[in-house]
Amino acid sequence: MMSDRIPRDPENDYTREQADARRKFAADKAGVTLNHVGHYSVDPATLPGNVENFMGVAQVPIGLAGPLLLHGEHAKGEYFVPMATTEGTLVASYNRGMKVIAESGGVKTTIVKTAMQRAPVFLFDSARQARDFGQWLTERFDDIKAAAESSTSVGKLVDIQQFPMGPHLYTRFNYTTGDAAGQNMVGKATAAACEWIRSRRNVRLYLTGAMDTDKKHSMVNALLTRGRKVIAEAVLAREAVIERLGVTPEELFQGRFVHLAGGYMAGSAYVGAHAANGLTALFIATGQDVANVSESHAGIAFTKVLDNGDYYWSITLPALIVGTYGGGTGLATQRECLEMLRCYGSGGAERFAEICAAVVLAGDISLSGAVLAGDWVSSHEKYGRNRP
Amino acid sequence: MMSDRIPRDPENDYTREQADARRKFAADKAGVTLNHVGHYSVDPATLPGNVENFMGVAQVPIGLAGPLLLHGEHAKGEYFVPMATTEGTLVASYNRGMKVIAESGGVKTTIVKTAMQRAPVFLFDSARQARDFGQWLTERFDDIKAAAESSTSVGKLVDIQQFPMGPHLYTRFNYTTGDAAGQNMVGKATAAACEWIRSRRNVRLYLTGAMDTDKKHSMVNALLTRGRKVIAEAVLAREAVIERLGVTPEELFQGRFVHLAGGYMAGSAYVGAHAANGLTALFIATGQDVANVSESHAGIAFTKVLDNGDYYWSITLPALIVGTYGGGTGLATQRECLEMLRCYGSGGAERFAEICAAVVLAGDISLSGAVLAGDWVSSHEKYGRNRP
Amino acid sequence: MMSDRIPRDPENDYTREQADARRKFAADKAGVTLNHVGHYSVDPATLPGNVENFMGVAQVPIGLAGPLLLHGEHAKGEYFVPMATTEGTLVASYNRGMKVIAESGGVKTTIVKTAMQRAPVFLFDSARQARDFGQWLTERFDDIKAAAESSTSVGKLVDIQQFPMGPHLYTRFNYTTGDAAGQNMVGKATAAACEWIRSRRNVRLYLTGAMDTDKKHSMVNALLTRGRKVIAEAVLAREAVIERLGVTPEELFQGRFVHLAGGYMAGSAYVGAHAANGLTALFIATGQDVANVSESHAGIAFTKVLDNGDYYWSITLPALIVGTYGGGTGLATQRECLEMLRCYGSGGAERFAEICAAVVLAGDISLSGAVLAGDWVSSHEKYGRNRP
Amino acid sequence: MMSDRIPRDPENDYTREQADARRKFAADKAGVTLNHVGHYSVDPATLPGNVENFMGVAQVPIGLAGPLLLHGEHAKGEYFVPMATTEGTLVASYNRGMKVIAESGGVKTTIVKTAMQRAPVFLFDSARQARDFGQWLTERFDDIKAAAESSTSVGKLVDIQQFPMGPHLYTRFNYTTGDAAGQNMVGKATAAACEWIRSRRNVRLYLTGAMDTDKKHSMVNALLTRGRKVIAEAVLAREAVIERLGVTPEELFQGRFVHLAGGYMAGSAYVGAHAANGLTALFIATGQDVANVSESHAGIAFTKVLDNGDYYWSITLPALIVGTYGGGTGLATQRECLEMLRCYGSGGAERFAEICAAVVLAGDISLSGAVLAGDWVSSHEKYGRNRP
Repeated sequence: MMSDRIPRDPENDYTREQADARRKFAADKAGVTLNHVGHYSVDPATLPGNVENFMGVAQVPIGLAGPLLLHGEHAKGEYFVPMATTEGTLVASYNRGMKVIAESGGVKTTIVKTAMQRAPVFLFDSARQARDFGQWLTERFDDIKAAAESSTSVGKLVDIQQFPMGPHLYTRFNYTTGDAAGQNMVGKATAAACEWIRSRRNVRLYLTGAMDTDKKHSMVNALLTRGRKVIAEAVLAREAVIERLGVTPEELFQGRFVHLAGGYMAGSAYVGAHAANGLTALFIATGQDVANVSESHAGIAFTKVLDNGDYYWSITLPALIVGTYGGGTGLATQRECLEMLRCYGSGGAERFAEICAAVVLAGDISLSGAVLAGDWVSSHEKYGRNRP
Repeated sequence: MMSDRIPRDPENDYTREQADARRKFAADKAGVTLNHVGHYSVDPATLPGNVENFMGVAQVPIGLAGPLLLHGEHAKGEYFVPMATTEGTLVASYNRGMKVIAESGGVKTTIVKTAMQRAPVFLFDSARQARDFGQWLTERFDDIKAAAESSTSVGKLVDIQQFPMGPHLYTRFNYTTGDAAGQNMVGKATAAACEWIRSRRNVRLYLTGAMDTDKKHSMVNALLTRGRKVIAEAVLAREAVIERLGVTPEELFQGRFVHLAGGYMAGSAYVGAHAANGLTALFIATGQDVANVSESHAGIAFTKVLDNGDYYWSITLPALIVGTYGGGTGLATQRECLEMLRCYGSGGAERFAEICAAVVLAGDISLSGAVLAGDWVSSHEKYGRNRP
Repeated sequence: MMSDRIPRDPENDYTREQADARRKFAADKAGVTLNHVGHYSVDPATLPGNVENFMGVAQVPIGLAGPLLLHGEHAKGEYFVPMATTEGTLVASYNRGMKVIAESGGVKTTIVKTAMQRAPVFLFDSARQARDFGQWLTERFDDIKAAAESSTSVGKLVDIQQFPMGPHLYTRFNYTTGDAAGQNMVGKATAAACEWIRSRRNVRLYLTGAMDTDKKHSMVNALLTRGRKVIAEAVLAREAVIERLGVTPEELFQGRFVHLAGGYMAGSAYVGAHAANGLTALFIATGQDVANVSESHAGIAFTKVLDNGDYYWSITLPALIVGTYGGGTGLATQRECLEMLRCYGSGGAERFAEICAAVVLAGDISLSGAVLAGDWVSSHEKYGRNRP
Repeated sequence: MMSDRIPRDPENDYTREQADARRKFAADKAGVTLNHVGHYSVDPATLPGNVENFMGVAQVPIGLAGPLLLHGEHAKGEYFVPMATTEGTLVASYNRGMKVIAESGGVKTTIVKTAMQRAPVFLFDSARQARDFGQWLTERFDDIKAAAESSTSVGKLVDIQQFPMGPHLYTRFNYTTGDAAGQNMVGKATAAACEWIRSRRNVRLYLTGAMDTDKKHSMVNALLTRGRKVIAEAVLAREAVIERLGVTPEELFQGRFVHLAGGYMAGSAYVGAHAANGLTALFIATGQDVANVSESHAGIAFTKVLDNGDYYWSITLPALIVGTYGGGTGLATQRECLEMLRCYGSGGAERFAEICAAVVLAGDISLSGAVLAGDWVSSHEKYGRNRP
């Protein structure tokens, strides 16, 4: 009789043999064959800390887009961008956007805020106790910061935001985390801070009160940032807009306003074309925690027609969560893709954040043009003024 | 001098040779080596429609979790679940949740709504024109439905929701799309419907007015559904909760309320632990459009302590977007993973949607327990009543 | 010793004598004198059903604005509008907006949707029971409608929207309610419907599950309407804009976009100047339930510069709750103010809803102009180009 | 021929004669009679700064509720509360809630935050300029604070929050404003601050970028406070709950969770019964700017069953905007009502804010009980176990 338990070797589980055993187990259980899943070059011995019960890999196709011309403060020059996706036209569309951008002189990117947080909630019997505790938190900030930072050589506690509600004090402990995305780092640091707090004050708490909204879009993260807030901007030459996108800047702007109003009415997390496609493809390729797309895809496109007829286009991502150190960034293909972007490891996170924002802008340009030109084309066909 | 253009062969671009050429190009440009990215078994000839400028693959490790005991209307029995991730502890945590569920008799899953949409906006000079056009849309629904469905053998137009604003009529054309996620299907169908409309009425429109919020979380999708609305429920035996999670049902419920209130205050897209990790890992493994995590991760955990002391736990996903046909589902490893779940191809989408919801529930159980037990453990340590 | 109980006469409580007794009681308790509060002409005998423990009146000053030139479908011609407020400049500002509108040919108003609701939640043990009950609700709609309408000669049940979550079915029972705001009417009707339901099905329920969001702004009401959805539009002559508001249409539009983006980022219930001032002043004057400002103040301003340089301006109020029958509409001063607007009683509600929207538009025009001209003026002063 | 212009006397407009003239004008225009509107005791000469084109008053009936037993930090002891309303049962319902509270020992109120703001947006050509300007703002905070405070003897600038988006810097200038609600005070102070800024930096700005969301509910105000954040709490004796409300604490709590989840799903500004009725009635009676109900009605009810079976009930109002100085607070009836509450004038605002929160709690208790007992009663009737 076949066992119901997934095969594991408590001593030495990260081997091809164990992966084979689990693949065989899974295949037998389902009565299927698993060939491709077992085809990989990543060394299982590198996987502890990245996956449990390893059985093989998903092969996600990577398409190449670029050059993306960037004038960031960290990312400068031309980049060719690996995008892992199974959605047809995605790479082609971003590529088209990058082309329009390049023809207009490139993208400018700016990081305007950095904050990764854990959000303990402190539980009291009354609002007054909670408020008084909040004052104590403020007064003892230096000690708490020291306690938090004792657990990490990189993370720095920047501030503690307080959100009292009923008898409880919800908080956000905001950190900078260097080149790591940092969720684990701030979790550990905040736990250390809370231990210090509990050594001084007899207080009940949960390490999260849900106001960090880890892996969840939220208004609080869109307003106050989780990860980095990054802005990408380009001034598109009027001719490039008309030729490449098939619409005038004025038509683009009219559409922008209609879509911003629609997105507002919908309660949409992103008002622009969308950030999710580009970020997801980059995140999969480069070993980011892809679930963070849920937070990272929020944003706003702000545009205007300039006096000279060119088109200013910006996108703002308020909660972009990326890292170039730790997590999946050091794995076989993931590291290669980060290296392609000159972002692997120490010092890469800000560069990579800028590239992400630039890619999102390229996608928005291409997709917005497509949506509007659809109208433009058909309305022009209707009236017999076909474009060549 | 090295060319700036990514190598492409307009005749025969989906070959290993072309992929090699592009990898070499990218490696040269960045001054790096790309070995692992070139290691794959998927046949490039299968990739048209899934990626452009194919250059290799991301190898994303898959861990195996299960058994997940399911009593769905479509998914029934035990499933072993492939989860593609680079985040350590993720697979172990879901596995633990599945164990608690299995010990309590399994998960029940229910699909309560299905709706995939395109959301054209019709542009007028006045609100009255827009309203009158809306009445005309309602009256001509059967014709519009016929026009839309002429473009697809699967998609069915169910209704057209209207959201007038200023001089414009924003709409949502809602469809069922069989086993496909269906975004392209409904796009094509709605374009056909709009062509029919324009053949009768001289009306300006954009094919989207942003109220489908494609690849963006939104209130409208959380309220009115995009994809499927699926509910997973389990009644956890009191003993299993205490033993496996280290907390009592009453403590879980207190935590639930604190977190629901915190999530509400934060304006969070999901109030529960979170849906994103499990969905992302499943989506990558099975060839879903992973960017849809942005919409799909929304949801609500609703729980209660039953009279007998057991714990009822549900999660509701209002906008789960999945397919088992089309997109990336037929690719090499992706298809194998769907087959492991007995979900590949025709008839699989509802089964797969149920599995997704069940996985999310397993993750919420495990993570919520961990968050609360952290408190429980430390507060108990504090008072000297250590658990064995 | 003074009693602690507010004086009441169970037999005959609505008299000047009882009001005097209560005023004296309150004055004594606080050690103050209450003269003005006792000065009123409303007959206490008319107040049952409007207030308990009547002790006098608040005298809220009414200012007169107008003429407001209206081309509604119900409200046509010039109106002079009574606005009850204690906020200086409010009446003057709305008056200015009405002037700009009149010079540009008036406002067009359109009611695009009507729906007042009660929102019972039906409580089950599982999602499947809830879903099945929902299907039963749909099948028995005609019977439920008959039961609901048996309690009212005016209210009509239009549809029942369903929002399953976990084991529960949240609903919205949507009605039209004639000239009454109708909250009580739909409460009674829905209670009757629920009685009928309970006579057939053994189901637990709360008469509200909070999804009507009575007296609370909400996304669901903004999307799906509570009360009436009304749009007011005007095309402002370019010259009137420049002369009266001190800015060009292009400057107005730039500001509009900046403010829409800011309002989106803020998660604001109204993106425009604001609807609350005008609605509140009208509501107090005319005996509306003023607490409904919480829902009614939601909305969107959508504007554009027309090809000829004029400025199209619209405001959309998705959840405007008003009545001209019942509630406080028949009281002494309140009725007079409704009569001034030719809206008292039967047939007045749609006219009044149109007037409300037109007033909001007038206020937005005036206030938006002021905000932008502030900038314009100062920046012009700065550069020495003062306007005459 | 009758003039179309509302009669005004530029020299001496605030007289009974002018009011009479305007009433006559309005009456003639509409062909109605206006008797009651002209019946008032407020002296027109006191109205400049409160209303323009004064023509009479709305007589809004005031009911008396209480005693409300309060243990605030500012409001202590018993209060009898004047509530101006035309909605029947409102006063009775709040009165019932106050009774339950009194029987349980009273309400505790706590002010946890104070912040009134103006929210200028600074307009630039690029995100980097905006960010750099933001750094300059931070560095020059002391100067800006001095400039802002030069315009007021009361207002204090506490901090400037920054929200960069695209090329613009949205801000919130947060102040304390003593006993005034303070919108005008902070407007004037921020204008002064902006003048100082413009004297140093050549920067375009709007005095509001819409992120103060003046007179509009918003997530940002609910999160970060506009006015005062106030919490009211009571521990209801188990017996009082059962006897007065007809439900057990456990039933209340089950309902609370169902309603919190429903309110979350609805995107509701208040999750509890509602704050709007009580606040509106108090605001009208006491000369508050009633339009602020739009912001002030936001909030959260957080409750729990205590170990001894009593019921802890709290409501948190994050954006309560009140004043006891300026605005309409000094008018005839309004001042009397504030005096009844021992809140008129200097030093009264915090006391009044506490009373407002306590009143909201009383209303929530009463209404929540009614909603749930409706179910309880009917389900008990159904099963033949009628309460006496």
